[in-house]
Amino acid sequence: MAPDALNTQTHDVRLYTPEDPLVFTRGGQIDEVTVRYETYGTLNRERTNAVFLCHALTGDAHAAGQRAGESKPGWWDALIGPGKPVDTDRFFVICPNLVGGCQGTTGPGSVNPATGRSYGLDFPILDMRDFVAVHRRLTATLGIPQLLAVMGGSLGGMQALQWALDAPQDMAATIIIAASSRLTAQNIAFSAVARDSIMGDAGFADGHYRETGTSPDTGLAVARMMAHITYTSEGALGQKFGREPQNDGLTPGFGVDFAVESYLHHQAEIFLDRFDALSYLYLSRVMDYFDPFADQGACRAITRHPVPALVCSFTSDWRFSPAQSKRIVARLEQAGVPVTYLEVTPGVGHDSFLMPIPEYADLVGTFLAHALEAR
Amino acid sequence: MAPDALNTQTHDVRLYTPEDPLVFTRGGQIDEVTVRYETYGTLNRERTNAVFLCHALTGDAHAAGQRAGESKPGWWDALIGPGKPVDTDRFFVICPNLVGGCQGTTGPGSVNPATGRSYGLDFPILDMRDFVAVHRRLTATLGIPQLLAVMGGSLGGMQALQWALDAPQDMAATIIIAASSRLTAQNIAFSAVARDSIMGDAGFADGHYRETGTSPDTGLAVARMMAHITYTSEGALGQKFGREPQNDGLTPGFGVDFAVESYLHHQAEIFLDRFDALSYLYLSRVMDYFDPFADQGACRAITRHPVPALVCSFTSDWRFSPAQSKRIVARLEQAGVPVTYLEVTPGVGHDSFLMPIPEYADLVGTFLAHALEAR
Repeated sequence: MAPDALNTQTHDVRLYTPEDPLVFTRGGQIDEVTVRYETYGTLNRERTNAVFLCHALTGDAHAAGQRAGESKPGWWDALIGPGKPVDTDRFFVICPNLVGGCQGTTGPGSVNPATGRSYGLDFPILDMRDFVAVHRRLTATLGIPQLLAVMGGSLGGMQALQWALDAPQDMAATIIIAASSRLTAQNIAFSAVARDSIMGDAGFADGHYRETGTSPDTGLAVARMMAHITYTSEGALGQKFGREPQNDGLTPGFGVDFAVESYLHHQAEIFLDRFDALSYLYLSRVMDYFDPFADQGACRAITRHPVPALVCSFTSDWRFSPAQSKRIVARLEQAGVPVTYLEVTPGVGHDSFLMPIPEYADLVGTFLAHALEAR
Repeated sequence: MAPDALNTQTHDVRLYTPEDPLVFTRGGQIDEVTVRYETYGTLNRERTNAVFLCHALTGDAHAAGQRAGESKPGWWDALIGPGKPVDTDRFFVICPNLVGGCQGTTGPGSVNPATGRSYGLDFPILDMRDFVAVHRRLTATLGIPQLLAVMGGSLGGMQALQWALDAPQDMAATIIIAASSRLTAQNIAFSAVARDSIMGDAGFADGHYRETGTSPDTGLAVARMMAHITYTSEGALGQKFGREPQNDGLTPGFGVDFAVESYLHHQAEIFLDRFDALSYLYLSRVMDYFDPFADQGACRAITRHPVPALVCSFTSDWRFSPAQSKRIVARLEQAGVPVTYLEVTPGVGHDSFLMPIPEYADLVGTFLAHALEAR
C-alpha cells in the first residue's frame, strides 16, 4: 500500500497559548500546548465521517501507514487503511498524541518556555478529563461539528468512555476496547512498581535527566518489560517462545539464555528509542485514578444522549479482563445506552486489541459503517 | 507457644573443606561450604521421624518459631509445631538454608577465603542437583539412614522432586507443593526482568557491592515487589486493598497514593533487610533451568523405588498453576509412583502454600502420619 493511499497528514497545532492556557482538572496550567496529530482518509463534504482514535499508554499519533525509514507501520495499521475495517476510503481518522506524551505533543519532557528547562515533575498531574478537553478543542479546531465516533483501546478506551460520559453530543457512536472503568489493585500495583523502577533509577535525576544528560534507561526498560509480560497471555508467550534457548542452549549464566529473554530485551530497546520516562509516569497515573462511575452524576449526560457503544474485550487479557469490560457494559446499559458487547476468544492477551482478529476487526468496521449510515 | 515447645535448634555445619570441596553440577567448586540449618522436634530413637523441609526462593532455614526481637515467626510456623499438621511432638523437622543463599549458608555474598573478597559473580552457577547433593550430605552428617519425607513448596517443591527422582531411597515419602517441573516462558520472563532490575542498578557494581559499599536496593526492591504481585491472586489483592487510598485520599502524585502501593513498599523494605541481591540471581536461575523430565532416564530410580508422593496446588496460583502440578503428577504416575493430588480452591495465589488452609494443612499432616505409621 502506497502511503498516499492513506492520505496521511501529520500536523502540529498550537491549541493553548499564554492568553488562553490549558488549565488542568486537578490544578495547575501550561501556557503553551502544541498537539501533534495524524489523519488518514478524507473528511467528507458533510463532515460526518470523522473518527477520533485515542491511543494507549505507550502509543502515539502514528496509528497507520509506514514512513520511509520506519521498521514497522503505525500501531493500528492492521485495522486502518483502504478496504480495512476502519476504511480510509470511507472514514476520516484523526489520531493525536496525548498531552503529557512524548511524540510531538507538549508533555513533561517539553521545554518550559518560562524557565528554559524541561518541565519534569513540575508538569501538572493529569486527569482523563484533560485528555478529553484537549481533544475536544482539537476537534473544534478541525471544524467538525460532531464526530462519527470516538474510539480507543486500553487507556484510549478509557478516554473514549470519559468523553462519551461527559460530552456524548460530540459523537454519534463510541468504541471502547480492552478498557476498564476502575483499575484493580493488581493493575495499580504493576504500574506502581514500574514507576518505582523509573524514579529509583539514579539516571532519573528527579525528572531533570535532560538537563543532567543522564537517563533512567534501566528503570524504564524494566518497567516496559514487566508491562509487556502483563500485556501478553501466558499461553501466547509459551507458544511463541516456550523454553527455547537463545544461543547454543545450555551454558547458564545471567545473560540472555532463553529466547524469551532476548525478546524482552528487544522490546525494551525499541521502547527506549521512542518513549520517555516522565510520560510513562504521568500517563500511567491517569489510569490509576480513573473511576468515572464513582461520580454519582457520571451518566447524566449520556442518559440524555444515549450514544451507541461497542465494548470489546478479550478472554486472554488478564491485565484488563472481560470482567472489567462487563462492568462498563452494565453501567452504560443502566444509563439506557444501547451497548453491543463482544468478547473475543482468540487472542494473545491485552495486546490482542492491536491485532486484526477477524471477528473483532470486522465488528469494529461494521459498527462504524452502521453509525455512518444512520446519520 | 514457648520457643522450647518446638525444641528449636540452630546449627552451622561445615560440610565441605579444601580437602573435600563442593564440586558443582555445571562446573566450578567451592572449597569451604558451611550450611546453616534449624531443627524442630526430636529425632526418635529409631531415627525414622525426620522430615526434611526445603525452602522457597526467598525463604531460609528459619521455618518455625519466633525468637526474641523478631516481628513474626518463621515462614511455615502455621504448619510446624506441637499439635500442628507437621507435629513436632511426632516429627523431627530439618530445614537448611540453601547453598547460594544468604542466611548463614555459603553463597555468592560470602567471603572467598582465597581472595578475601566476596565471591560475587565468580560463585559457580547452581543447579537443583547441587541443592540435593548438599542436603544429602547434611542428612548423612546427622546420621539419618532414611528420611521420613522430603518436602517443600515452590522452589522447595522443585528440589523435593529432584531429590525424589535422583535418590528416592533416601525417603519414605515426598510432598511437592505449588511447584513446577519446567517453568513457562512467562515464569522465566518475570524472573529475567527481576534479574535485569538488580544487575542494572548502578549499586550492583558487577556483584561486588560489598566491596564498593553500594547496594542495588532499588533493583532488588523492584524485583521483590514485582514478584510479590505475581505470588498473589488478583482477587486477594483486590479484597485486601481494592482502590483504598493510603492517606487523605485524592491528592495525586507519584508517591504512595493507594494502600496497595504502601503495602508493596513495606514488603520491599522487609525484604531488603533480610535478602541479598546475588542470592536472588543465583537461586532464581536454578528454577529457570529446572527441567528434570527432559532427561530420558529421569524416572529410572523412582520407578525402582516408587516413593509415595503428595502433590498440592492452588487454583488461585497463576504463577505456578495447577496445570504445572498436574504435569508432575502425570509424569510420576507414568513411572508407577503412587501419587495423591490435591488442588485447593481457597487461597490467595502462589503464596497460599505458606498458609494453614485446613484441607491442605490437614492433608500434609495426615500424609506424614501415614508415612510414619507405614514404616
